[in-house]
Amino acid sequence: MTDSEVAPITLSYIAGFLDGDGCINLQLVRRKDYRLGYQIRPAVVFYQKAEQKAFLQWLKSVLKYGFIRDRKDGMSEYAIVEIQPVLTVLQALKKYIHLKARQCELAIEILTELQNSKRISAEEFLVLAKKVDQFSELNSSKKRTIKSEQVEAFLKAQLILTP
Amino acid sequence: MTDSEVAPITLSYIAGFLDGDGCINLQLVRRKDYRLGYQIRPAVVFYQKAEQKAFLQWLKSVLKYGFIRDRKDGMSEYAIVEIQPVLTVLQALKKYIHLKARQCELAIEILTELQNSKRISAEEFLVLAKKVDQFSELNSSKKRTIKSEQVEAFLKAQLILTP
Repeated sequence: MTDSEVAPITLSYIAGFLDGDGCINLQLVRRKDYRLGYQIRPAVVFYQKAEQKAFLQWLKSVLKYGFIRDRKDGMSEYAIVEIQPVLTVLQALKKYIHLKARQCELAIEILTELQNSKRISAEEFLVLAKKVDQFSELNSSKKRTIKSEQVEAFLKAQLILTP
Repeated sequence: MTDSEVAPITLSYIAGFLDGDGCINLQLVRRKDYRLGYQIRPAVVFYQKAEQKAFLQWLKSVLKYGFIRDRKDGMSEYAIVEIQPVLTVLQALKKYIHLKARQCELAIEILTELQNSKRISAEEFLVLAKKVDQFSELNSSKKRTIKSEQVEAFLKAQLILTP
């Protein structure tokens, strides 16, 4: 999907739906097999009762990326999770989003830097990790999240980052 | 507000937001001072955390009708509740709504008839009340609602409707 392929009227509708009941999130995730020990994982997620799954399938047919799964609580979830797909979708929705405008801009900023840096340094990664800290606040998330402090402590302990 | 005054791109956004987190509802309400004993009360409602009330104020500046109130649970609510305002808003949003299309069409149908009939007969009112029954199902509402059966029993008991 590129910006020009989908009608603005449809993108505007999807932006409204995302503002109402969707989620734009970036999270720090521990990855033992990663060079810097952590991953910045982006997600754009839409929810709906399982009986309305056809609606999520329509959304996916428009946005192309991502996958739909049925949760055990009777809800279905349509999630887009890789860097490039999330970046493409957010860039297309950006000018139509109102409520989650800050999340959208911040995610685009972080993901663009991640995509452009082939082998990101520990220092650069930590700068991005600090920006990721803002998401749990913007989303009023009550879930326990990994903070950049933990990443920093890890990078120093591993001597990847000079203390 | 009329259909032509608001940009389609904005109406499409609002339709998306309504599909995601809003509510279109019609209810039967007991009114001792009403000729037929019951009112059909329509509502289009948008919700948001009180700290995002500016967003609801923007919505109201677009749709013109209705009022915003702060609830005690930290949420704000923007509600449009009279027949003509709800009808105007739904007619403007109709072609952009996906998930709540059935509620939107049914509400327009019932409200148009209510608006066009100056002194509705008990028989005609009961036909509309039966259509209102469908809303609690469409909205998967768990609230106790007054059903058309109750209206029918009342109208018969009052000898307004011939048994």
